[in-house]
Amino acid sequence: MREKVKVILWGLGLMGQGMGNMILKKKGFKIVGAIDIDTNKVGKKLYEVLGVEKTADNDVTIVNNPDDVIKKGAADIVLLATASFTKVVYPQIMKVVENGINVITTAEEMSYPKALDTELAEKMDKAAKENNVAILGTGINPGFVMDYLVIALTGVCEEVNKIKVSRVNDLSCFGKAVMEEQGIGLTKEQFIKGVEEETIAGHVGFVQSFGMFEEAFNIKFDNIKQTKEPIITNVPRSTDLVDVKAGDVAGCKQMGYGYIGEDVFIEMAHPQQIKPEMENQGTGDYITIEGIPNINLANTPEIAGGVGTYAICVNMIPHVLNAVPGLKTMLDLPIPAAILGDVRDLIKK
Amino acid sequence: MREKVKVILWGLGLMGQGMGNMILKKKGFKIVGAIDIDTNKVGKKLYEVLGVEKTADNDVTIVNNPDDVIKKGAADIVLLATASFTKVVYPQIMKVVENGINVITTAEEMSYPKALDTELAEKMDKAAKENNVAILGTGINPGFVMDYLVIALTGVCEEVNKIKVSRVNDLSCFGKAVMEEQGIGLTKEQFIKGVEEETIAGHVGFVQSFGMFEEAFNIKFDNIKQTKEPIITNVPRSTDLVDVKAGDVAGCKQMGYGYIGEDVFIEMAHPQQIKPEMENQGTGDYITIEGIPNINLANTPEIAGGVGTYAICVNMIPHVLNAVPGLKTMLDLPIPAAILGDVRDLIKK
Repeated sequence: MREKVKVILWGLGLMGQGMGNMILKKKGFKIVGAIDIDTNKVGKKLYEVLGVEKTADNDVTIVNNPDDVIKKGAADIVLLATASFTKVVYPQIMKVVENGINVITTAEEMSYPKALDTELAEKMDKAAKENNVAILGTGINPGFVMDYLVIALTGVCEEVNKIKVSRVNDLSCFGKAVMEEQGIGLTKEQFIKGVEEETIAGHVGFVQSFGMFEEAFNIKFDNIKQTKEPIITNVPRSTDLVDVKAGDVAGCKQMGYGYIGEDVFIEMAHPQQIKPEMENQGTGDYITIEGIPNINLANTPEIAGGVGTYAICVNMIPHVLNAVPGLKTMLDLPIPAAILGDVRDLIKK
Repeated sequence: MREKVKVILWGLGLMGQGMGNMILKKKGFKIVGAIDIDTNKVGKKLYEVLGVEKTADNDVTIVNNPDDVIKKGAADIVLLATASFTKVVYPQIMKVVENGINVITTAEEMSYPKALDTELAEKMDKAAKENNVAILGTGINPGFVMDYLVIALTGVCEEVNKIKVSRVNDLSCFGKAVMEEQGIGLTKEQFIKGVEEETIAGHVGFVQSFGMFEEAFNIKFDNIKQTKEPIITNVPRSTDLVDVKAGDVAGCKQMGYGYIGEDVFIEMAHPQQIKPEMENQGTGDYITIEGIPNINLANTPEIAGGVGTYAICVNMIPHVLNAVPGLKTMLDLPIPAAILGDVRDLIKK
């Protein structure tokens, strides 16, 4: 059997730690490096930060300087979870690729980087091919629930006239950064101003999902629109981190519309809020396809965003290692599947 | 732009006709041949049998002898819908492949032919590679709902402990052959005898689905069990073709169990019956994954079997034409997607 799949974790926030813990529970992986900028983590042992027993597969010291671990031949793959935006992760990805190492990243925009950063996407593709590696961005959304799964379902359709996708989720478990990005706890007026001034990021991903739809369906939307509206709560809602008064903002309802001519062909609704159960709002992933046949799918509750993202990143490792070199999207690779046995048995090269 | 994708239809039952009609509604296809053994169809024009207007893309005469149309360079792909079993379609597939033409077939066993006919699968793979073409078997089930879609969903799971899949469907729209295969209208005793004597085929596909799971998850089931039980109706149920008395058999409940050790890891339930609404039985596709996270998906009503099968066969044409030569399964190819624009834009070669 080949030697263990060598992994470097770059970014040890919730996603990076999730990936780390997940691969240490699987057979055939070895973590050979860990990078983070958090001074509370740098210098510590990875197993301490992950809260697991020390083994030969996790005994590395967290470093601040990527050059200390990103070296030719050092690893098979880097799992990169440092930021959401292509422009931010681009130099990190290029450093990894130029050292002949494959990359999977949680960066939302990297799920379909051509959508916004065509030139950077071309550069990454070229560098990956020159260095004989593959690059993939994926996650629960964008990357799976509101785009990939929808596309797969159209595969059993003779005709598709209109698609509606909705993901209703609960943000209660997320941290302070997410609360701020979504405008939770603000007044309605503050929220509206925040959207105008782009301090409320909302969901990063609709543009990438629409790009993926365009490629999969070989269409070009005549127009793409997005809106962000406050979810005003009628009752007080609280988490450990934030208290929202009745009449204030408990979440952000983001809508996306892809037009063919004058008609909306794909409508995406993504209301994200804390404690939706306080107003009897169930959560779930919903896909409706009007066509032949109609499809009416509901997954309740929603696939949890955190675990869904780190799990699909880890589960795609064999497909990325087996891929023809280049910048990949989920559309280029075989379907994801849970890794149940030894990951090495899934590596074909 | 390349010339139109040339298609030969082999088998013009419900599936073959469905594929033919679907293709003629899409851009970039041309049907260049049609084969059937039904003397009511042979000699007629395809467009007459399909009930459509004559065009340059459908003006072919239906022939009985495959050799009249299966010739080198005659077509890009043959859509084969003649039988359910690998052994039956094998010589047909080999004839197509040896003439350098790609094949997609609705034959259920061909969705994962290695499961039962390893040797034939190897021969087909070898012949496909020698002739630089690809072969794919697919359909709604096996091929999508109870296997492929389940595997894709595990891709967002950190752990998978148990999987339950259920497809509850209505057979009312199907023909006499299906009624007989499922034992509909029999007494309970006749049904049980029919299962023993293997005159009741039930659903063809669990063995193939289990094979696909084994490959995707890189596991080997310690045991695979199947049962077929009669669905006894408490009220009379009738279709145009069959009248079932209360106390007799309205359908076949097929169960499949894939064991890891002593435990059922995957449980498949596929009760197929006529008029389930007569006893307030809703229909649908249901996938439950016990793991991290849990997944609880319902698609209601079920994706219709007929259109689902012919649609996925047609929608996979670009992926098959783009594939590395060989015998393929759905696991080897990118996800299916509805063909909305001109199919030629999806062909990369």
